[in-house]
Order: sequence, then C-alpha cells, then structure tokens
Amino acid sequence: MPESNVSAEEIFSEFKEHSISEFFRKNSQMLGYSGKVKSLTTIVHEYVTNSLDACEEAGILPDISVEIKQISESKYGIVVKDNGPGIPIKIVGKALARVLAGTKFHRYIQQRGQQGIGAAGCTLFALITTGKPIHVISSTGKQSFECDISIDIKTNSPVVDNVNSLGGGSSGLSIYGEFGEVKYERSDHGVYEYLKRTALSNPHISLRLVEPDGKDIVFPRAVNEMPKKPKLIKPHPLGVGTNDLLEFAHRSTGRKISQFLMDTFSRVSQGKIAEIKELVPSLDLDKEPRNLKWDDAESIVDAFKKIKWIAPELDSVSPIGEEQIRVAIKNILNPEFISVIERKPRVFRGGIPFVVEAGIAYGGGAGKAGNDGGASGNVLRFANKVPLLFDGSSCAITEAVKGIQWKRYGISNFDEEPVSVFVNVSGVYIPYSGVGKQAIAQEEEIIDEIKLAVMDCARNINKYIRGIRNKNLQESKYKTIMRYVNQLSSDLSDITGREKEEIKKSLEKIIEGRYESLFKEDEGEDGQQLVERGVTGE
Amino acid sequence: MPESNVSAEEIFSEFKEHSISEFFRKNSQMLGYSGKVKSLTTIVHEYVTNSLDACEEAGILPDISVEIKQISESKYGIVVKDNGPGIPIKIVGKALARVLAGTKFHRYIQQRGQQGIGAAGCTLFALITTGKPIHVISSTGKQSFECDISIDIKTNSPVVDNVNSLGGGSSGLSIYGEFGEVKYERSDHGVYEYLKRTALSNPHISLRLVEPDGKDIVFPRAVNEMPKKPKLIKPHPLGVGTNDLLEFAHRSTGRKISQFLMDTFSRVSQGKIAEIKELVPSLDLDKEPRNLKWDDAESIVDAFKKIKWIAPELDSVSPIGEEQIRVAIKNILNPEFISVIERKPRVFRGGIPFVVEAGIAYGGGAGKAGNDGGASGNVLRFANKVPLLFDGSSCAITEAVKGIQWKRYGISNFDEEPVSVFVNVSGVYIPYSGVGKQAIAQEEEIIDEIKLAVMDCARNINKYIRGIRNKNLQESKYKTIMRYVNQLSSDLSDITGREKEEIKKSLEKIIEGRYESLFKEDEGEDGQQLVERGVTGE
Repeated sequence: MPESNVSAEEIFSEFKEHSISEFFRKNSQMLGYSGKVKSLTTIVHEYVTNSLDACEEAGILPDISVEIKQISESKYGIVVKDNGPGIPIKIVGKALARVLAGTKFHRYIQQRGQQGIGAAGCTLFALITTGKPIHVISSTGKQSFECDISIDIKTNSPVVDNVNSLGGGSSGLSIYGEFGEVKYERSDHGVYEYLKRTALSNPHISLRLVEPDGKDIVFPRAVNEMPKKPKLIKPHPLGVGTNDLLEFAHRSTGRKISQFLMDTFSRVSQGKIAEIKELVPSLDLDKEPRNLKWDDAESIVDAFKKIKWIAPELDSVSPIGEEQIRVAIKNILNPEFISVIERKPRVFRGGIPFVVEAGIAYGGGAGKAGNDGGASGNVLRFANKVPLLFDGSSCAITEAVKGIQWKRYGISNFDEEPVSVFVNVSGVYIPYSGVGKQAIAQEEEIIDEIKLAVMDCARNINKYIRGIRNKNLQESKYKTIMRYVNQLSSDLSDITGREKEEIKKSLEKIIEGRYESLFKEDEGEDGQQLVERGVTGE
Repeated sequence: MPESNVSAEEIFSEFKEHSISEFFRKNSQMLGYSGKVKSLTTIVHEYVTNSLDACEEAGILPDISVEIKQISESKYGIVVKDNGPGIPIKIVGKALARVLAGTKFHRYIQQRGQQGIGAAGCTLFALITTGKPIHVISSTGKQSFECDISIDIKTNSPVVDNVNSLGGGSSGLSIYGEFGEVKYERSDHGVYEYLKRTALSNPHISLRLVEPDGKDIVFPRAVNEMPKKPKLIKPHPLGVGTNDLLEFAHRSTGRKISQFLMDTFSRVSQGKIAEIKELVPSLDLDKEPRNLKWDDAESIVDAFKKIKWIAPELDSVSPIGEEQIRVAIKNILNPEFISVIERKPRVFRGGIPFVVEAGIAYGGGAGKAGNDGGASGNVLRFANKVPLLFDGSSCAITEAVKGIQWKRYGISNFDEEPVSVFVNVSGVYIPYSGVGKQAIAQEEEIIDEIKLAVMDCARNINKYIRGIRNKNLQESKYKTIMRYVNQLSSDLSDITGREKEEIKKSLEKIIEGRYESLFKEDEGEDGQQLVERGVTGE
C-alpha cells in the first residue's frame, strides 16, 4: 500500500465556510434556475406567489400584473406589480435580498411561501446574470418609497441603495428586475401557462400578463370573495416528533410540563394528561418544561401515539373549494363535463393535516391539445393553490394519477383522451422534494389520498362517458330504424293506396314517441341523466 | 372590495431570519431523508463518500467498513470506519456539524463531495430523530482522539463534547451515530445495493458491510492502483460567466486585467489577449482588475465566446477508466458480454469539462433479477463514481437511456432483457438537480453526450446479440440435418450392406467437418467472432 502523501493538516488547511447565498449562486439550478424558459417562469412564480400571500394576509382581493420585455437575445426585464400591503422600508432589504429570512418559516399557518428563499433567489439570479440590482417601489399606504436592492453574496446580506421617498397613494408593491439566461416562450413550462394555472387555482384573483410582443392578456376574477383565511393553529400531538417537542419545551416559560402540553398542542385536555400519566407513570409532569430531557420527551411522544385523539383542527387548511374550482375550470378550460371533489382533511406523518381537492375535466378545452387536432390527458398539479410546472415525474400527484387504472373509468388510454386532471394539495406544511418547490415528495399517505380523490372524480366521469356511449348507441339504433321507414312507407302506400309521405310522417311520429321507452332498458343506470346535466354534473 | 384589515407593519412584525440548519431540520427530505430505507442509505452514502474523498486526497487505498445494528423497530446504530487521513481536532466539529462548511466548495477540482452539507446533515438527522450526538474516533497518525459531536441548530454551530486523547496508531476515522426513522432492507434502494454499486465504480477500494443480522459481506478490491489524482486546474474561459469573472477580478491583487486573465484562466495567452483587444477596442486591459465593472466584464465574456479556444485541460477530470470498469463489472455482475466506452472530455455551459463513461453488460448477472427468474434491463447511474439510487426519473442519465431506440441495437424490449447500462459522469462541477445530489440536472449537452456514449456501447452489444442469434440459427440448422443422419444411415446400410453405426459415424464426421464453411454465408459480418471473444470482446 502506498504511503500517505498528504496529511490531514494539509487537507484541512483549506477548510472554509460559505454563505447560503454563495451556495445557491453556484447551484442556482436547485432553486429552479435551469433552462432559459424554466428560469423565467421561476422568477414570475416567486414574485406572484409572494404577492398572493401578502394580499391574502392583508385581506385584499389581489390584482396582479406581470409585464415582460425583451432587452436582448436572452435578457429580459420583468415587472410584477400588486395591490398588496407593500413592504415597510426597514424590512424591504432583508425580505428581498437575504436568503432564509421571512415571516413564514416559523409559523404554523398555511401559506404559499414557507422558506424565505424565493424572492432573494430572484435578486441573486438578477445579480449573477446581469449584475443589476432590482428596483422596488413599495407603498404601505402610509409610507411610499423606491429603492435599488442588491445582495452581498459573501455574507448573504442585503444592500439597499438610492432610496427615494415618494408621494402617497394606495398600497402595493412593484418589482422590476433584469435577468439574463432567460427566454419567453408560450410552452407548457412557460409564464403564460403558469399564470393560466394560477388563475385556475385562485379564482378570486385578477391577473394580467403583458407579453414581450405587447399582447395584453387578462385572466379575470371569477369569484368576488376572498378565500376563508387560514387560522394559525396549535400543532396536533400526532404531528410532533421528540425533537419538536423538546424545541417547544425549551422555549417555554411555563412551570409545569402538563400545562405546557395543554397550551402548546391542540386536543390536549386534562383527561388526556391523565392518560399520559397512566401510560408513563415514571414521568413527573409537574417538572418545568425547559428542563425536559430527550428520554422523557420521547416517552411523551410515544404516549401521544397510543392515545386516541380527535382529528386535527381543519381551520389551518384553506382549500380552494369545490364550487370555486368548478367555476374556474369552466371559465378557463370550458370542458363538456366537470367532476370536482374536496376530500376531508387527513394527516400525514402522524399529525400534519392536509386536504386534497381533485377535479376532472373532459372534452371541450380539457386535455393537452396535440398538433393533430386531438387532445391528450394532462395533469394540472397544485400545492397550496400554486401551480407546479416542473419535476412532474418525481411528484406525488403524478405518481398517484399514474397509478390509477383509467380503463376502469371508461378512459381506455389516458394519453389519448381530452381529459385534464386537477389536483390541489393544501396544508400548513407541504413536504416539497426540493428547494425549488416544484414537486411534492412521494410520501405514501399523500399519494394514497390523492389517488382516492381522483378515483372519486373518475367514477363520475365514468358515468358520463358511459352516458355518451349509450347515447351514441341509441342514436345509431334510431338511425337504423329510421332507414327502414322510407321503404316501409312506400310498401304500405302500395298496399293501402294512401299517400307515402303521410304514412311516413305517422310512422316517424310513432317511433319518435316510443323512442325513449323503447331503449330504456339499454340505459346504464343514470348515464343518460348525467349527459343531460352536462357541465354542472358531479 | 374589502378594506385591508392587516397592515404591512403588522405582517412584517414577525419577520425573522433562520439558520440553514433550521431550514434543513424542517426540510430534511431535501437532503435525502424521506422514507426509512432511503434515509438509511443517505447516511451511509454521506459517510462513505467523505471517506473515499479523504483517502484519495491523502493517497491511501481505501479500506472502508460499514456496520449496521438494529436498536429498536426503526432505530439503528451505524458505524462507518476508514483508513483515511483522519480529521484534526480543531476542524472536526465544523467538518461534521456545520452545514455549508468544508474543504471542497471553493476548489476547482473533481471530488465526490462539493457542498459541505452531507456529514453535517447526518449529525442533524441523528439529533432530530434520536437526540444523540455522533461519536467520533479520529487519528491523523500523529494525534488521536475521540469525542461527541452535536449541532446547535439555531446558530448552525458545532458542539464538541467529551474529548479524550487516545494512544497512537495508524490514521483513520470512525463515526458512530444512532438514527431513528430508518430501516435496513436489501432492496433496490438499500445500503447493500448502494455499496455494491460503490464497489462497481471504485474498483480500487475494499468495502465491508456487516448487516444487522450479522451477515458479513466483503466487496474485495479489484485493482491495486490508486486512480489518477485529479489536478486543481484553472477554469476555462468558455466556462465563466460575467459574475464569475467579476468575482475573480475583485479578489485579484494584480495590476493589469490582461495579466489577471492569463493568470486566472487556462488557455489565455498573449495572442488571445490581442484577440480580445481587437474584439473590444474600447476596453483598457491595462486597468486594475479589482476595479472591473459589469459592462466591461460582460464584454470580455462576450469576446471569450467569439474566440477559438483549445479544449479545457483534461487533468481536472478523473474518470474510472475503461479497463477498471470492465474488471469491476466482470467481478460484480459476471455477465456474458461487456462493452465499455470512455468518451473524450466535453464541455457544457460553454466551458465546464466533463467525461462520460458507459458500459453495457449483457446476460449472466446483468439486468435486474425478476421474481419469475427472468431479468429486466436496469440503469446503473453514477456521478463522480458515486452511485445515484434515487430520483432516477428526473436524471439526465435516465433521460438519455430512455431516449435510445434499443430495437436498433438488437434489444427488442429494454425492460425484458438481461441488460445493465452503466453510466458514470465525471467532472469538477456536476449540476445536481437537488441538494440531495441524487440526480444530474437534465442539461441538453450532458444528455446528448451520455446518449452517444451508450449508443457506442450498444453497437458492440448489437454485434454480440446478432452473433448469439446466428449461432442459435446455425445450431438449429445443424440439429435438423443431424436428425436425418439416423434414417439415412439405416437406408444406406440396407443398400450397401455396411454397418449402420459405421456409416452414421462417417456421415456425422463429414457434416461436422463441413459445418463451419457450410453456414459461413449466414454469419453476420463479425458476429460469430464476437461470441467467441465473449467477455473481453468490445
């Protein structure tokens, strides 16, 4: 064996630390910046997502506009403007130019953003592709200003320059950035598709897009109501790990573990405390929570798992709503048939609540239009109402839809029928598979729940498709009989001496009159009924 | 429209910053910790990868052992031990318990690790699943010690406890950790498969695995030579963006931009400087690099793109080597046929060098064994010699292999033949699609190059499979003729009165003797020849 020729001291002499900004500067593809079209969509996605969260938190019906101008071959200027609450001047730098900073990370509430990476990632991407800071105009209603914002990559700190106070006006935020290595394109992964889907999952917003060629597109507001505001809730005992429990306990200033448990978690009552005592007799629940040790915390978590709990509170989850989805799908896809399902909240990993909504649209503008005029099935994925356009192959939603035996539901080949499957997963915590948040991790409980939701919808679609098939069958039988009427009328006219046309008319009347009862036995259950109810059928 | 009911000041009053450790504590699935089997493999992967990098940097042929013990249902203890250079005591905390710290991030050299996340991620995962620090024994040869290492999540700082000096001995590192939410399983995604593939792509290592049931498995060293050491190189002008150039320039203490360019990048000569001057006459290359501005940097990068350059230096890339791959595949899969290709280095994104090696193994132990005794095609993915077991569907390697028309190469259905496709992508910088480094981002230039490499191999496989088919065809013709020999011998015996057996023997001799020339015209080019060369054929 050769002698070691480099010592540990030499190897580790180069040991260095680096900032999270530096990490993402080198690995911007992890934030969604890979490929010119995808990078442009990522930028719009980050800004629009933040605007929506801010508007909803402030209780404002969102009006958002996105304007894209081409500067040179792969350099574009992007303006995203909203009517939200604005950002106060003392926060604006950190909010837009410090990776891992924000209002959402520590909260137990459902919002689109959760990481505090998105907007700072955009600033970083502008900087490394054009060297230009972003320009911000913000008004909180009371205070208005503009400024340039950049980022010191080595220290992950914001740099705010050229601050100007502006006159009053209504609140809102406008961000202008110049980005290189991007491209505008009306493809599946492009901004147009992204905004169309955003409108689909957020029927309460008004969205405007000005394309580089000047085309001005508006996705109008479909419902005038704000979605129900998600509530900050206490975590459910089943959703907590030993490490989480310790974190909470060590932050607590309470006197007794028992009180701390009741204050911190939902569904923990005096009765449940008694059950815990019974399950872990060795544990002293009168001790101070800040002195809780791992082993005791673990025994509490184990006890949590043995106790029967009421399900988590649902107020934390804010789904889109069955009726809202139906209206939005009708508005945007205008299909022949829609089936929408909102499932009851479930939990994953023991206690993290989530809700799956699913919709299937069939015919009309549903499916993905092919070059041959036909349409193929497509899956519209959403997490907390945000469209997921990328990394579909590694997403729980794709996995669930792929696992469904579509033939059972009258769809012989999903890839060759005009069908769109819409799935939205909502929850306080969505386990994304990557920092770019483009796919939901393939956790079994989530996949199963999505599958059930889509299969629920598919059953209705099945009835509808069977209805179409029955109707077609009846029509073809009807036509066959009608073909004989002409000949029969002639023959009867010869025999009886009456006018052929007269005989034909009476025959047709008889057949038409008897038509429905004649073929009643062919009808599959309620198939025909569903066809008639058409678009509003469920 | 409703009135805004929450002000910007209220919303942003909760604005907080959080550490990268905190981020990954909440999103450990992004580091590969999702699913019990996958989580266990991720831990082993991180430690083994670090051990291999350290051994190779120190010039030591790696001996690595992995021991896995079950503690309770989903809690396991893992020991990973190597004969590497060890870690000095003053570095050990940061090296194993600070996310985004390491020796590799800023270097332009090919190594398995590049992010400074892996080992600290393991410590974090131990902490959040069992609350236990990891126990480390390190010897640099001169200095030996043991200690416990934990991590202060809020500040992303290491906590080193219970340090004990130990007696001397040879160098090496041993890490013991206890992890919850994990499971040992001999599945496709398990530790056994991971180590088997590690042995496949690193024929110079000796690898031992002790499974929880005590089974002791050794993947022996296949070659006794260290791989050629990758060299630290200067970046190629075509691989640099404006932002990179500015970074380099602002760190420079040189006097002139021209000299700085020649010192910093490879292939930049006085002649090239003259070309740059000609392309950007307005630029003063005698100015100090530390004052370089974005526009000037951009014009230099634009000029770089217009100049003809010699390809990047190849010393930076350390592929496995054609012969090494062949030996390893034979050792571990023992197939009937192997074809291996090492392509010339290429560049992506203009100037980042990478090398693709591909191998195809057919028959024998190749392919993925099915329950029915048959085998199906599988893809063995590697990046810098590290097996990639997860996220296959989003990986450039899978995408490339999927895009090949296997029928053209004699494989009528990839999913139903005993074929393994081996692909290793090596380079100073691999664009992983996620922090967990389980898939290579689908960059077009990389996909294309992988495709070419695999198709090169496939051509040889095609010849081999055609050879088998021809041989089968010949054998069947031979058998048909032989069937007549018996009857013919009887008849000739009747006619001539000579012994039947005697006649039969002479007939057989004639047929056998003429067999080869008889069917020579049926042979596809060099098919038969390849069959005979078998395992070493190419």
